Amino acid sequence: MSEPEKSENIPDASAGKEVPNGGNSAKSKEDFDLAAVYVSDAMYNRNIYFDTSPQAIRLYLLYNHWALKVLLYVFILVNLGLAIFEEPAVFPLPTWATMLLELLCVFVFTFRIVHYAKVIPRDKFWKDPKNICIIVILLLTLVDMIIYGALRAANCSIIRWSRVLRPLLLVNVTEGRQLRRAFRSIRNALPQIFNVFLLFMFSLLMFSLMALKLLGKRNLKTIEGLPYFNNYLEIVFDLYVLVTTANSPDVMMPAYNSHSMFTLFFIVYILINTYIFMSVFLAVVYNNYKKYLKEEVRQLVRAKRHKMARAFAVLQEQKEDGGQPMVTQANWNQLVRQVRPDISNGHRELLWHVCDDKNHGFIGKGAFVQLADLLNIEVITLKSRPHPLQSLFPKIYQSAPSRLLCRMVQHRFDTLIVVTALIATIINSALKSLVRYTSRQILDIVFILRVLRLLRVVDGFKRFRAIINTLIRIGPAILTFGQLIIVVFYIFAMVGMELFKHKVKFYEDSNDPAKAYCGNPLLNNTAFAQLNYCKNNFNNVVSSFILLVELTVVNQWHVLSSGFATVTHVSARIFFVIFHILVVIIIVNIFVAFVLEAFFVEYSMDKNDLQTSLEKKIKELELAVAQEKLEDNLVNAMETMDNDLGTGQTSTTANLPNLMFKIASKRYRTVDALLQRMFEEDLDPEDFRETDEPEAQTGSFPNPAFGSA
Amino acid sequence: MSEPEKSENIPDASAGKEVPNGGNSAKSKEDFDLAAVYVSDAMYNRNIYFDTSPQAIRLYLLYNHWALKVLLYVFILVNLGLAIFEEPAVFPLPTWATMLLELLCVFVFTFRIVHYAKVIPRDKFWKDPKNICIIVILLLTLVDMIIYGALRAANCSIIRWSRVLRPLLLVNVTEGRQLRRAFRSIRNALPQIFNVFLLFMFSLLMFSLMALKLLGKRNLKTIEGLPYFNNYLEIVFDLYVLVTTANSPDVMMPAYNSHSMFTLFFIVYILINTYIFMSVFLAVVYNNYKKYLKEEVRQLVRAKRHKMARAFAVLQEQKEDGGQPMVTQANWNQLVRQVRPDISNGHRELLWHVCDDKNHGFIGKGAFVQLADLLNIEVITLKSRPHPLQSLFPKIYQSAPSRLLCRMVQHRFDTLIVVTALIATIINSALKSLVRYTSRQILDIVFILRVLRLLRVVDGFKRFRAIINTLIRIGPAILTFGQLIIVVFYIFAMVGMELFKHKVKFYEDSNDPAKAYCGNPLLNNTAFAQLNYCKNNFNNVVSSFILLVELTVVNQWHVLSSGFATVTHVSARIFFVIFHILVVIIIVNIFVAFVLEAFFVEYSMDKNDLQTSLEKKIKELELAVAQEKLEDNLVNAMETMDNDLGTGQTSTTANLPNLMFKIASKRYRTVDALLQRMFEEDLDPEDFRETDEPEAQTGSFPNPAFGSA
Repeated sequence: MSEPEKSENIPDASAGKEVPNGGNSAKSKEDFDLAAVYVSDAMYNRNIYFDTSPQAIRLYLLYNHWALKVLLYVFILVNLGLAIFEEPAVFPLPTWATMLLELLCVFVFTFRIVHYAKVIPRDKFWKDPKNICIIVILLLTLVDMIIYGALRAANCSIIRWSRVLRPLLLVNVTEGRQLRRAFRSIRNALPQIFNVFLLFMFSLLMFSLMALKLLGKRNLKTIEGLPYFNNYLEIVFDLYVLVTTANSPDVMMPAYNSHSMFTLFFIVYILINTYIFMSVFLAVVYNNYKKYLKEEVRQLVRAKRHKMARAFAVLQEQKEDGGQPMVTQANWNQLVRQVRPDISNGHRELLWHVCDDKNHGFIGKGAFVQLADLLNIEVITLKSRPHPLQSLFPKIYQSAPSRLLCRMVQHRFDTLIVVTALIATIINSALKSLVRYTSRQILDIVFILRVLRLLRVVDGFKRFRAIINTLIRIGPAILTFGQLIIVVFYIFAMVGMELFKHKVKFYEDSNDPAKAYCGNPLLNNTAFAQLNYCKNNFNNVVSSFILLVELTVVNQWHVLSSGFATVTHVSARIFFVIFHILVVIIIVNIFVAFVLEAFFVEYSMDKNDLQTSLEKKIKELELAVAQEKLEDNLVNAMETMDNDLGTGQTSTTANLPNLMFKIASKRYRTVDALLQRMFEEDLDPEDFRETDEPEAQTGSFPNPAFGSA
Repeated sequence: MSEPEKSENIPDASAGKEVPNGGNSAKSKEDFDLAAVYVSDAMYNRNIYFDTSPQAIRLYLLYNHWALKVLLYVFILVNLGLAIFEEPAVFPLPTWATMLLELLCVFVFTFRIVHYAKVIPRDKFWKDPKNICIIVILLLTLVDMIIYGALRAANCSIIRWSRVLRPLLLVNVTEGRQLRRAFRSIRNALPQIFNVFLLFMFSLLMFSLMALKLLGKRNLKTIEGLPYFNNYLEIVFDLYVLVTTANSPDVMMPAYNSHSMFTLFFIVYILINTYIFMSVFLAVVYNNYKKYLKEEVRQLVRAKRHKMARAFAVLQEQKEDGGQPMVTQANWNQLVRQVRPDISNGHRELLWHVCDDKNHGFIGKGAFVQLADLLNIEVITLKSRPHPLQSLFPKIYQSAPSRLLCRMVQHRFDTLIVVTALIATIINSALKSLVRYTSRQILDIVFILRVLRLLRVVDGFKRFRAIINTLIRIGPAILTFGQLIIVVFYIFAMVGMELFKHKVKFYEDSNDPAKAYCGNPLLNNTAFAQLNYCKNNFNNVVSSFILLVELTVVNQWHVLSSGFATVTHVSARIFFVIFHILVVIIIVNIFVAFVLEAFFVEYSMDKNDLQTSLEKKIKELELAVAQEKLEDNLVNAMETMDNDLGTGQTSTTANLPNLMFKIASKRYRTVDALLQRMFEEDLDPEDFRETDEPEAQTGSFPNPAFGSA
């Protein structure tokens, strides 16, 4: 590799001016604003088609400001949290108070959508289903509040049906990208899942018919003395429950007690329906979810390249010799400073060296387009700053006991746990009034948290590291699943509360005779009451959520669902079956598929190309941190950037340059980066190549349509 | 493509004779015998290093004779089935009778191993661990029988411990290739699984500690009134059970009833240990099992090529012009006729055309080596023979009602079901004496089997076909899992019977007061007795197997294991935990992994290269069956070769050649072929290239070491 002339290495804005065509005057602040917006949209995969007028860009920057986003999510949480205070309430508040709060939330959401409408062109705004969704939700909420308020004033009882719509806001706000993607992937996978489901239902119905013929006329009795397997619909339900294994082996026992041969029927049934069909569900969910997610990621990557190409078009200049358009280092610096003001000069220079690896002093489109991905790589900047005590008393500082102290202080993870323990202590003190903790118990909890220090020991073993790293890596993605689960649970909790509230009661006082049947005589002598499940009810949003978690774990869900069917109507089972299909068969399987995929990726590949080239550059510039000094372990994976180094390793510090870098490879700044990495092996190289299509230059790139869930 | 001269197209044995070097005399019968043995070993992936002397080959052919193999498996089944008649017996037989039968089995196995020792060189025989294993098992069995017989005569009770070794014969006989491979893959995957298991145990112990600290001193009571969560080991067991979800939500209820906040602990626990850790287990099992199986398949393919190269070396002749060695069509025909006498001349000719696609009249090594795989492709030969009635009364035969009749008769699947129904009727009649079926009930079962006709309707939908085909395709592999399960279950059943026999009793007579506590006062008021689980016991081999199936399904396994711990000792739980880890965490996960992989393969690719080239040749020779005539559906996948065609489609029959072919692509003759296909995308092309290494020519190819499980 021959070094290019040094004269080309120090370009400046004036150098660009000499080139005649292509707006090569010194770039205005508006140009940088626009380019910075494109780059930051590319970094965070925002696909918003904003106006490019300077005023709209300022509004757009404001729209993307973190404070407004936090505010939005706070109000979404408040809106969802209202269920705690509304009838049936955990902590009852007067109706006017919750109504006022909800009105405030609606106001904030309206403000946000109006802001959004100002940022993007009018026709784009009305073509986007998620905006229509939000507007409809807000209008329906207002209508419902008015009806509810009026009827409440007239002392009529009425259902607050619009509460079901609340979690949909979480999906439809512009920031709910990951969640929308998850829902879209599920929706796209549904036809295939439905096919398997039909086959499964066919098998279920056939087996039920066989069971009826085989066992129906034998006058067998269940353990409760009821007739066994003589009603077709009951058999279908029982065998459906058997697929979840929740009533095994009880459902089989009467037949088994009658003759051992009958177990053959159940064993074949379990083999086919529980083992094979449930595996097929996992396979189909996995395959389809992955397929559609891959397509989504491909679109995402394409959109990112287009945005970077637009940013390049804004900042590009033409070289004297009429070559390819390029961006100068000065402009590039200015841009990066604007996009990420938080990164250090050294870090920025390093990134420039990665882009401009031949030291031309300018970069072409191909190198420029990488910028968004480069900025997403977490680089830890290490300042080798000597400890103040060291410079004052070098002798004492380097003595043996002092070193031991240093080493003891260095255990950051420990620090984390101590901080957590402190926070826990504070929370506990706050909760004291509620649960009456003794000080002894607080100490217990602090002790438990200290026990977590053992995690550090575990992390020390290399063979556990791949597993633990993968677990940490999928953390952010689990948050998306958390949101998904909350949306689905919230809707089911709201419907469940309207259907089943106050049908089952829990008595704190254990002497109340009504406790034996949960306050509902219909439950007398049922398994539900006998197992003391009274607190598993829909009487408020908290117990509803806990009940739904229990239903997700599946075990005993037939007892729970039969309990609620007993106090209402046998068709209430439909509610529980739908919940099972949606949450256990689809969402839990997607979760399992995601964990599986993340592990296969972890096992099959290492860092991606861009990270490798960045690392190579770090090594080349002799800015790398020696591996043995900062082992790539759990501690790094959990701590934030800008560590201090040089408190312990005084012997080598002197030889090191002032700044050192290290790639925090085990973490991703965004979930999208994780997804991109998960599928990048399967992605078409086309998607990564810089695009030179005319539309990228003229600025009208296809904005992937984002339908609402 | 220019056609070569026609003169080269009709080679014969005499043509070969003119070439001087390389043993080009007419091949002797011994040569064909040897080559045929190599080809059939390659086809069935037998890796036996036999002597090449003509006498040893004759012995080897006898060793591989299907009748001897069937005999072996019959005696293995008899040996395993002895457990039904031995104490504790389902149908008790006198000790001398079972001992005599077992002695006969041992004699047969000894005969088989002696036969094997005659086939392979002496040093190879003693180096193979599976032979040593069989000899040790047989010796130990004899020793145990002598001790047992002697002590039995002296009226001492003693354990028949050698029964545990019986299923190991299934693993170590030469035919147990698939099973050995499965065990080897499991063994190789164990270290990684063990790492995850250690992490999981760490998490379990930590959570148990937290539970003890959090809940231990609150004086909570379980539903039975026992102290709740105040014994560390009990907590560990309870939380282990919670991972299986078997005691959810019961284990949580006392804490939940005390305060809702405590559910957070359980929800976090379930999220981490049930959902994440169990998915990680699946991921690790899947990944490792696949990795090692791929390596095994790679070795298999390599060994297959080596064997084919040796067969080629036996039959090769040198061409006049000193080119590459080759095999003439006559010799090839003779070889194929010897290896698979069942295939038709037309079929054989077709295969030759695939190998010799340029019509040279001879083939080189590259084409020859494909033969084993080609013979493994199931080709359906269709004879377009007109129906006798058609030739006699053409007018009447083609009339509308007659056609309708034809169409009705054509439903072969139906035929299958009618045959099954007949067999079932016969079996039912035989069982009449046992279960007292009324004739009405027999009709019911026949009716149920007729209901299965609906499967045909389901298969009619294209969207179900991929799913059903995959299910059928994994059928043979499930048989391997079946053997694996039988080996593991048998061992656990034998141990369980020695540990727990007659501790729990089942009373047919429901008026017996001992029924309430399963004949064991220790079980009074336990969940085990209350749920009427008395028949779930280890009192004979059948009920042991049913109990183990219930434990595999997992639900209520804590009730079952606690029941047996109550009647013996709390440490009995270890037996059940080990069973759970081995069967549920490892084997069931491997099964799920296998189903997943089979589906991913089905979704990701179609027929393999060889099948495609065969199909192309079929099309080229205009021997293909028009697709619309014989839709590639379930019927084809289930019926055997040599269909009759031409009873219904009289209008087109006249134009068709006498023989037509179709690839039964949805089926594999051997599990190995399925495995090879599953991994062929990942296999190194090296493995498929014909090898020209010297050792392949000299005949000493590396025989992959087959250790015993």
